[in-house]
Amino acid sequence: MDPWELLDASLLMSKSPWLRVYQETVRLPSGRILDDFYRVVLPDFAVAVTLTVDKQLVMVRGYKHGLKRVCLSAPAGLVEVGESPLETAQRELMEETGYQTSNWQYLGRFVVDGNRQCGTAHLFLARDAIQVTDGNTGDETENVQVELIKPNEFLRHIKSNEIALLATVGAVGLAMMSAMAEERS
Amino acid sequence: MDPWELLDASLLMSKSPWLRVYQETVRLPSGRILDDFYRVVLPDFAVAVTLTVDKQLVMVRGYKHGLKRVCLSAPAGLVEVGESPLETAQRELMEETGYQTSNWQYLGRFVVDGNRQCGTAHLFLARDAIQVTDGNTGDETENVQVELIKPNEFLRHIKSNEIALLATVGAVGLAMMSAMAEERS
Repeated sequence: MDPWELLDASLLMSKSPWLRVYQETVRLPSGRILDDFYRVVLPDFAVAVTLTVDKQLVMVRGYKHGLKRVCLSAPAGLVEVGESPLETAQRELMEETGYQTSNWQYLGRFVVDGNRQCGTAHLFLARDAIQVTDGNTGDETENVQVELIKPNEFLRHIKSNEIALLATVGAVGLAMMSAMAEERS
Repeated sequence: MDPWELLDASLLMSKSPWLRVYQETVRLPSGRILDDFYRVVLPDFAVAVTLTVDKQLVMVRGYKHGLKRVCLSAPAGLVEVGESPLETAQRELMEETGYQTSNWQYLGRFVVDGNRQCGTAHLFLARDAIQVTDGNTGDETENVQVELIKPNEFLRHIKSNEIALLATVGAVGLAMMSAMAEERS
């Protein structure tokens, strides 16, 4: 349970702004030293789980190169320089879907990989969203189609492998748990 | 929405079995070519969201170097050579917690990062688990304490930042949605 002690970190690779890899030397609580612990630093990103006024989930369908295929995911994107994670979530929701709302709830920040780090996901729940533009105004690496699904259809899209990204599952799962806890209280 | 075409991939870094980094050249649907798309390949892992016979969540508290602090997480670990993801989930649950059950449900596989890949998470729900040993028999990089929490306390542990890993949120969120959908049907 005790923390590991960081003895040394050397930067093995830097591909700014996308990726840095460090090789760390750490001392475990037992005293044993590991000299090959790799840490991968990726940019923070924000995920906007979004419900319309009539309680449908605003999702996007598009090609994801990490998956090498098209999938259905929650609107999301990298936090840009000078932006807060909330501003990122709002910008990505607007760019990808054209939806907008003033009703935003912060669900929390979560490290992507417990060993390697791999960036931090900031998860948000946006409610009462209305569509004000057609969306899809992001750059061409983010070419998507908006798709509304009922929250109780989420599991069906999981079973059919259309929802295939960990951040979407985490964000929607947490949003649904939060919304249900509020209804009960 | 169309897939990107992979024109070339060169291996920039290989730290077997932990990490490989590729630089890919891809052609976007518009015809534009990107020659610096980085892909990070990490090992697959399995997460075992586990409920005891009296419906408590079996969690582990331990130091996570990706987070640089102690947190509460679902039992999980890397898929070893020759193992199926289910075998990994069963082994990690036993090693970390000493809990065992024959009631396992596969919740799905999810890519960790939609752009960079970063491995695949296999999520499981284990029910009716009983403790048969003290647990904590994994190697010393996995030194944890077992902690039982009620499912309705999960959000409190999120709010207090004790639950801080994306895979735990995704796995528990999906497990709770699945269990609730079964109860309704």
